[in-house]
Amino acid sequence: MILDELTRCIRDLNRDGHSPATSTNYSCRDSSGKIWITRSGIDKSLIESNDFIEISAEGRALPPFESMTPSAETGIHCALYELFPDTGVILHSHDVSAVVQSVGVGSICFEGYELQKAFLGVTSHEGKIAIPVVPNSQDMSVIHSALLERKGELLYGVFMIEKHGYYAWGRSVFEAKRLLEAFAYLCRAERLLNS
Amino acid sequence: MILDELTRCIRDLNRDGHSPATSTNYSCRDSSGKIWITRSGIDKSLIESNDFIEISAEGRALPPFESMTPSAETGIHCALYELFPDTGVILHSHDVSAVVQSVGVGSICFEGYELQKAFLGVTSHEGKIAIPVVPNSQDMSVIHSALLERKGELLYGVFMIEKHGYYAWGRSVFEAKRLLEAFAYLCRAERLLNS
Amino acid sequence: MILDELTRCIRDLNRDGHSPATSTNYSCRDSSGKIWITRSGIDKSLIESNDFIEISAEGRALPPFESMTPSAETGIHCALYELFPDTGVILHSHDVSAVVQSVGVGSICFEGYELQKAFLGVTSHEGKIAIPVVPNSQDMSVIHSALLERKGELLYGVFMIEKHGYYAWGRSVFEAKRLLEAFAYLCRAERLLNS
Amino acid sequence: MILDELTRCIRDLNRDGHSPATSTNYSCRDSSGKIWITRSGIDKSLIESNDFIEISAEGRALPPFESMTPSAETGIHCALYELFPDTGVILHSHDVSAVVQSVGVGSICFEGYELQKAFLGVTSHEGKIAIPVVPNSQDMSVIHSALLERKGELLYGVFMIEKHGYYAWGRSVFEAKRLLEAFAYLCRAERLLNS
Repeated sequence: MILDELTRCIRDLNRDGHSPATSTNYSCRDSSGKIWITRSGIDKSLIESNDFIEISAEGRALPPFESMTPSAETGIHCALYELFPDTGVILHSHDVSAVVQSVGVGSICFEGYELQKAFLGVTSHEGKIAIPVVPNSQDMSVIHSALLERKGELLYGVFMIEKHGYYAWGRSVFEAKRLLEAFAYLCRAERLLNS
Repeated sequence: MILDELTRCIRDLNRDGHSPATSTNYSCRDSSGKIWITRSGIDKSLIESNDFIEISAEGRALPPFESMTPSAETGIHCALYELFPDTGVILHSHDVSAVVQSVGVGSICFEGYELQKAFLGVTSHEGKIAIPVVPNSQDMSVIHSALLERKGELLYGVFMIEKHGYYAWGRSVFEAKRLLEAFAYLCRAERLLNS
Repeated sequence: MILDELTRCIRDLNRDGHSPATSTNYSCRDSSGKIWITRSGIDKSLIESNDFIEISAEGRALPPFESMTPSAETGIHCALYELFPDTGVILHSHDVSAVVQSVGVGSICFEGYELQKAFLGVTSHEGKIAIPVVPNSQDMSVIHSALLERKGELLYGVFMIEKHGYYAWGRSVFEAKRLLEAFAYLCRAERLLNS
Repeated sequence: MILDELTRCIRDLNRDGHSPATSTNYSCRDSSGKIWITRSGIDKSLIESNDFIEISAEGRALPPFESMTPSAETGIHCALYELFPDTGVILHSHDVSAVVQSVGVGSICFEGYELQKAFLGVTSHEGKIAIPVVPNSQDMSVIHSALLERKGELLYGVFMIEKHGYYAWGRSVFEAKRLLEAFAYLCRAERLLNS
């Protein structure tokens, strides 16, 4: 059931430009603790709920999916489930405004927007929030290490990989999608304000 | 019936980017004088007509909805219904162009656009119109006071909250949506002209 | 049948942002010579084929539509049908890029784009084309006079009214829509190139 | 069956702005080696799978389609099928960001984006890729010659015609669409970064 809800969400995110060129990957941990992740090489405009495969907490494809390839970034999903035990859903986005805002910075900051309240634990537009940006790498263990080093900055449920994209996670599809949309929106606003 | 019409309108506005991240809230006053407002925490791409709850003129959830939470900004809706007794529908938008145009200004002004005629009482593109921008606050009574102080500037059926979003209201879904779309469009035009 | 085709076209144009805030108006001349135009005050996302009314060549609503109001800009449609007897369909757009490009200019020019070939009589990307921009007026006879004065520049099937929008006309829905989309696209390209 | 899949893809690309004003053309080579190409003058929002006609390897319409006109750019499709024997699908786009990025350059370059991995043979975001831009011409043989001259730069499955649009090709709809979307996305990112 959560796979159906997540599938619908992924199609909507595709339509809004978050997953160009078959990029991005998505996962959920269902009520029985099983972790499901999108298999590699799906056009997200066509994703079906049977395009998910079950993986172990370490990211290995479990039977009957041993012959299939989980998404290349499975290690990031596993790391987030381990770091944040409440997490039920992890979304990914290549939103172009976010990617453009990430170039050459260690964090992307927002100040004074009402929409900052979409982030976990933020109850006012006042103040500033900073989303960590880590360097891109094809070696997932490098990104994993960067996440561990900056764990204290992961409190908002979003982190960005430079010139790559970002992850948003939450207890439910609803919560993770809210974070994903909020971050894209705020990056767009910052881009417009500074162009 | 008006709830069905409003529900459809909200889904369309969501698709056009007016309600990212579960933000925004909507209400109507039906033919019998009852006020209905969206309950808190709905993904607007999925809203159904039974996601509205009835509230009193003061904003309290009425039976059988006492256990549900009306949108945080219910007080703004109630103030508008009181100030403008003709009002049947109130829409809200977080349109990113409007938010960007609102930064650091007391009004957002337009001059010479044909689309200004979409606003209440405007019959020519000639002349200038100014939409009031009030500072954001988490205390609804502060926004309420700002509205009362600037009541004379509310003649166009739109007001903006800085770095937050705007409200548009009218006698019908048709009228309120017209104002909402006109304001977003004109903000986009101004942004393009000045970038 | 042409009303059904035109209705579908109008909904698609609405989705693409050409008719914000209930603005814009559309007409066709059917195979028997009857002219049909959208009635005033329709949300174009909801238009139905019975939202057209028949008008005379001079723009008066014909029976049984005498009690209904044709679009305010009916006079422009009538002028175009008279000036260009081949015309079967007239479309209107408030596209924001076109509106922004029209400010303070007498023509909008394009040079060297392949898409210029979408315009009537253009067979190469080489060379330059100029679309006339006339000042806006609430008096349709002023716009009518401007059209007559610049008749020689109307060869491409498109003309623009400053800070208002543009008209595109052709023998069929297909042809008029091609012109409408080409002009919006080229204005967007010019805006991007010069920002 | 591949015609159905390609038809759906073309409608999606139209919705995303890749084929304004009836422009662009598409083809595939089916499992029996037959080449199918869109006939001229189709509004791509309405394309059906029977809007394709069979052509010879030299681009002539084959029976029973002799009376129909293949797209003007059929010669480019034929050249690509000859140059790259693996090719099963060829897509075309007039994406406005790509067109704007093509002005006055011999190549469009990207560096350090994760999405570069969408291109054939690219396995890391590190490094730089260059997509060739050839001058536009109404004479297909001129474009054909330019392709032959720059054959070594066609390794990514994409080439651009200046101020016109680009072609993306691959073994399947899936692969060609991935290249098409990746190139548009990267052009948009570059435009945002440099505006």
